Amino acid sequence: MGLVIPLEEPASGGELNLLVSLVDADMKRVNQTILARTGSSVTMIPEVANHLISSGGKRLRPMMTLATAGLCAHTGNDHIKLAAAVEFMHTATLLHDDVVDQSDLRRGKLAARMLWGNEASVLVGDFLLGQAFKMMVEVGSLPCLDVLSSAATVIAEGEVMQLSAAKDTSTTEDDYLAVIRAKTAALFAAACEVGPILAGRSKPEIAACRAYGMNLGIAFQLIDDALDYGGSSIKLGKNVGDDFREGKITLPVVLSFRRGSEQERSFWRRCLEDGKIEDGDLAVAMSTMRKHRAIEDTIERARHYGAMAQDALELFPQSDFKTALGGVIDFCIARTH
Amino acid sequence: MGLVIPLEEPASGGELNLLVSLVDADMKRVNQTILARTGSSVTMIPEVANHLISSGGKRLRPMMTLATAGLCAHTGNDHIKLAAAVEFMHTATLLHDDVVDQSDLRRGKLAARMLWGNEASVLVGDFLLGQAFKMMVEVGSLPCLDVLSSAATVIAEGEVMQLSAAKDTSTTEDDYLAVIRAKTAALFAAACEVGPILAGRSKPEIAACRAYGMNLGIAFQLIDDALDYGGSSIKLGKNVGDDFREGKITLPVVLSFRRGSEQERSFWRRCLEDGKIEDGDLAVAMSTMRKHRAIEDTIERARHYGAMAQDALELFPQSDFKTALGGVIDFCIARTH
Repeated sequence: MGLVIPLEEPASGGELNLLVSLVDADMKRVNQTILARTGSSVTMIPEVANHLISSGGKRLRPMMTLATAGLCAHTGNDHIKLAAAVEFMHTATLLHDDVVDQSDLRRGKLAARMLWGNEASVLVGDFLLGQAFKMMVEVGSLPCLDVLSSAATVIAEGEVMQLSAAKDTSTTEDDYLAVIRAKTAALFAAACEVGPILAGRSKPEIAACRAYGMNLGIAFQLIDDALDYGGSSIKLGKNVGDDFREGKITLPVVLSFRRGSEQERSFWRRCLEDGKIEDGDLAVAMSTMRKHRAIEDTIERARHYGAMAQDALELFPQSDFKTALGGVIDFCIARTH
Repeated sequence: MGLVIPLEEPASGGELNLLVSLVDADMKRVNQTILARTGSSVTMIPEVANHLISSGGKRLRPMMTLATAGLCAHTGNDHIKLAAAVEFMHTATLLHDDVVDQSDLRRGKLAARMLWGNEASVLVGDFLLGQAFKMMVEVGSLPCLDVLSSAATVIAEGEVMQLSAAKDTSTTEDDYLAVIRAKTAALFAAACEVGPILAGRSKPEIAACRAYGMNLGIAFQLIDDALDYGGSSIKLGKNVGDDFREGKITLPVVLSFRRGSEQERSFWRRCLEDGKIEDGDLAVAMSTMRKHRAIEDTIERARHYGAMAQDALELFPQSDFKTALGGVIDFCIARTH
């Protein structure tokens, strides 16, 4: 099996410092809300939920909600509940993903399903999704409910799309982009769109925040996919090669397959379509990727979407929040070196 | 393994005839909405969703939404979308339940997870839940959103509760009632509550419809649990003894355990807690239940909740819808003879 990289904070996390300090007070309230809303007299629910929620995720998505609300000078408290709802939607997805992918590890700890079973992961995920909607309903903004419920549908659609595309080496870059737009970027986009809606901003400003989130989300997933083939040593709590072993077709594979010889394509088909992986195949996969510059170019594509995210922000005048949101783009890209 | 009873319409379905004819035109529109909303360019989604949706469920829950809207003289179209949303919430629960229970059959057909895998069942369930919320948001009634999102949370909580109580023969009747209130009756209650809300009815009328749905839901689940031990030959598409094999503690077991000898309690512990079931144990379980009148008394308890449902309706003046809703109670109870 693959190399487990120890859980540690990335050395290059400095790009997030400004964001973290700007939203610090709000994040404390989000964390309190998260804690309060995972409470249930059914003790298994807080156990499973807190196992994952307290396991050291960066809570990037709720921070985006707070920061875009800040960027748009939102005054009020509704962004706290919506940020918590966004984190619950994300956590529910992780719980269900672990069942779908049959993952053993999540964030460097045993996945909840390994401790409480697939049953608990499915059902506690459903509970968190229900709580997310309850919080949105409490906020009572129908446009925000529209954005977040649409995202929930699109995320599930993206996951099914990924399931259908799994093991299919003929997946094109466009197919792949459609999957990650839906399964990852849609939640980043929604997380960034509700702040300006709450603040009563104009349509172009709302669209700008959404575009920032969408493109940032694409860049984030591209880097994640590069890291799965060892693009860096700072990847947190996942096995290098997980995607390879699960037969997931990500951009590094799409590029290597397109650029490869017929012999190399047979290799990818055997490993990813037939699932016949032998000792040393991961090393062969990684050296084939190096040969075709597939990791570098995946990172290059991520930079492209990062640049689009940056330009989406340019509509807004200079502010600390704007600088901090730009820093998130740098953070996402910088995870690879 | 158990006896599979062939799929056929219950001979005693006459109690539903008035309801079916009263909501016929509306149900056609609900079915069109269901069909339209399971559409997706990701072909696996309509495949999985329609496998279950078109497999001959009675669509009792959306009919309840339509009938309570009719009872309250609702004029407008919003009840159609909410009825479809209720059916989607139910279908999502079934898809996730099959994964949790590792069921092979659902409504006499192979469970979706047997054909497309657990992954698809989890994710298509999430998609349907997302679509349910999107439809509710389109209707735009915050009180209805509150009722239905609360139900979604409570249902998941009930399922986890059942998971925690599974295999525990010390479960009391009250524990068991708390589980079925949450996992089954909460959706019946919500399905019946949104109609009067849309119609702008008074709080007592809304509460009456909710109480009708809640008590009907409890009666419905009690009868379902009795049928699982062969209370009737008209049970549709499930194996007799499924609950027994899965170690589920339902009321027939709770009563038999309480009323049994120490030797019988050892039997229940071995079968349900330790999961050590031998040939002939289901027959022993059923004869032990007969001895203690556990099935009859489970049905008697169901009649009690049915009577409460009927009394909840008495607030409303006589009408065809009221008669039809009373008929649903009779239908639920009549499934056992």
